[in-house]
Amino acid sequence: MADDPPAATFDEIRGLLAELPGPDLAAASATATREAQLTKPPGSLGRLEELSLWLAQWQGRHPPRMEHPRVAVFAGNHGVAGRGVSAYPAEVTQQMVQNFIAGGAAVNQLAALAEADLRVYELALEQPTADFTQGPAMTEEDCARAIAYGMMAVETGFDVMALGEMGIANTTSAAAICLALFGGSAADWVGRGTGVDDAGLERKRAAVGRGVKMNAVAMSTSAGRRDPFEVLRCLGGLELAALAGAVLAARVARTPVLLDGFACCAAAAVLFAADPRALDHCLVSHRSAEAGHGRLLEAIDKPPLLDFGLRLGEGSGAALAVQLLKAAVACHAGMATFAEAGVSGPGG
Amino acid sequence: MADDPPAATFDEIRGLLAELPGPDLAAASATATREAQLTKPPGSLGRLEELSLWLAQWQGRHPPRMEHPRVAVFAGNHGVAGRGVSAYPAEVTQQMVQNFIAGGAAVNQLAALAEADLRVYELALEQPTADFTQGPAMTEEDCARAIAYGMMAVETGFDVMALGEMGIANTTSAAAICLALFGGSAADWVGRGTGVDDAGLERKRAAVGRGVKMNAVAMSTSAGRRDPFEVLRCLGGLELAALAGAVLAARVARTPVLLDGFACCAAAAVLFAADPRALDHCLVSHRSAEAGHGRLLEAIDKPPLLDFGLRLGEGSGAALAVQLLKAAVACHAGMATFAEAGVSGPGG
Repeated sequence: MADDPPAATFDEIRGLLAELPGPDLAAASATATREAQLTKPPGSLGRLEELSLWLAQWQGRHPPRMEHPRVAVFAGNHGVAGRGVSAYPAEVTQQMVQNFIAGGAAVNQLAALAEADLRVYELALEQPTADFTQGPAMTEEDCARAIAYGMMAVETGFDVMALGEMGIANTTSAAAICLALFGGSAADWVGRGTGVDDAGLERKRAAVGRGVKMNAVAMSTSAGRRDPFEVLRCLGGLELAALAGAVLAARVARTPVLLDGFACCAAAAVLFAADPRALDHCLVSHRSAEAGHGRLLEAIDKPPLLDFGLRLGEGSGAALAVQLLKAAVACHAGMATFAEAGVSGPGG
Repeated sequence: MADDPPAATFDEIRGLLAELPGPDLAAASATATREAQLTKPPGSLGRLEELSLWLAQWQGRHPPRMEHPRVAVFAGNHGVAGRGVSAYPAEVTQQMVQNFIAGGAAVNQLAALAEADLRVYELALEQPTADFTQGPAMTEEDCARAIAYGMMAVETGFDVMALGEMGIANTTSAAAICLALFGGSAADWVGRGTGVDDAGLERKRAAVGRGVKMNAVAMSTSAGRRDPFEVLRCLGGLELAALAGAVLAARVARTPVLLDGFACCAAAAVLFAADPRALDHCLVSHRSAEAGHGRLLEAIDKPPLLDFGLRLGEGSGAALAVQLLKAAVACHAGMATFAEAGVSGPGG
């Protein structure tokens, strides 16, 4: 991490969660009032109307704006990569970060198309987390610092944060987080990630199951429940912790969030498990082809905007979905009202 | 119609259908070759990869391009509007055309966002078709002229045609076309359109059922089958006939097509019923909230790009989906290859 954020503790982060701002009801009301006057049958723009309303209430502004989107990609390395759970070697994380910087990745093209500012955050790529099949992936200090780092990445002045990640083996980490938070079996949450073969898939399932068992005591509260932040610490990764921090800080900064695929949503699910309202300012950009993502979206109750069979990560789906927000804002702000256009209403 | 196209006959149009060009296999092959070299796991861009391939093979060009999209909206009036089947009076067709010209409609905002050229074609709005519950909506001459008019609207030089329509009561016409082509009951195909109330919905179902019965003989071939072009003539409208013509001409001009919602797809379904390959160069931009659209998409075997609850028509969904094509082309053309980026492949 380039700038070390001040140390934080899980208790400080829990304190923030308890004080999250709610939706701006005045902005929501102004949006609904204008929406009803636009030259179209009521409700006929479907989800585009929902998007305008959602943006307005979480930006705290009417009309909502989508001129300055930011795409933020967090990258980290995982000790569990050493278990042969990915089709690609761990050095690809660093290589892909170079590709982001050089402008050659999918997310570069999609961010440019959306006229979005793209920022890539490397989280100590040379220091992978510990292998979670042997014990906790991180210390509380490292995990909380990564969360704080993600929080610092949220600047004001952006109309949406489209979040993504890069980290070889992080769908293994994400599957373990989901298993610990939502139950089921390892097979329910483990998919092929970047395209692991059958033997690798077996190793991945075994690693996820073993990781949850190995860390069971550490992740338990005194009441015998799972502590979401301990789940993140034991099974997560630095980039996933940073994503959780970015989601939290965006709420405070009144910046709506677009989540990307499985790993990104698993990071956000930690906050959901701590408080289901914590993701009210977030939408899920797409349903990934990665096996566990559909199940995760049901668990966090977020219908995706797109169902495009994407499974790339790196914020690609979130950057793509920025276009849909732009469309919603363009219609809401730019359309004529019935009165302006001289169009007859229902019944003439 | 501003410029009267030369008269055509259904037989001439059937002749065109029999000679439609197929996909460009060289462009498809070049697309697949490059796709496999881009810095991502194979297939991980899901439907975006399919879109690049589809564009290349129907544009007949590698790489595919999406710099000059056109949105074309055809407007017509329907005699069946007099039966109280719509929530809005028939004069709204003309008023909305004025709104398109003034730039105040949803499609204006969405076309501008996509940097698309928007053209609106009025088909004799002052001369609605005949009420199809009493007999054929059009003569063969009028119907064939409207098809030819739609064909003339296709100019070369556009990278995609995003097609839409405006016509009070045209979801009634579309439902009747679907019932005649694909069977079922009137209730299977009739929805609330712009938002008709329960009594209006009943009138709409009755009109659709009666229209198909009334025109049954006229729509039958000597072999006792339904003649798709007779279905279009008896139950369709001028804007729907023009849409069918535009779809046909776009194929010949090597211009891929984005279809919009229920009415637009019903017009295209006439060609599908005549020859299922006729829509291979078309994609459906979205699944409309209009009741019959999902069933129609199954009948013509076209999974939609978006499922956004839109039910506005006027090409709004098709214009919105242009962004997805742009995203596909941006990734395919702009991404670095593994070799260029120095990224390790699978297995490393």
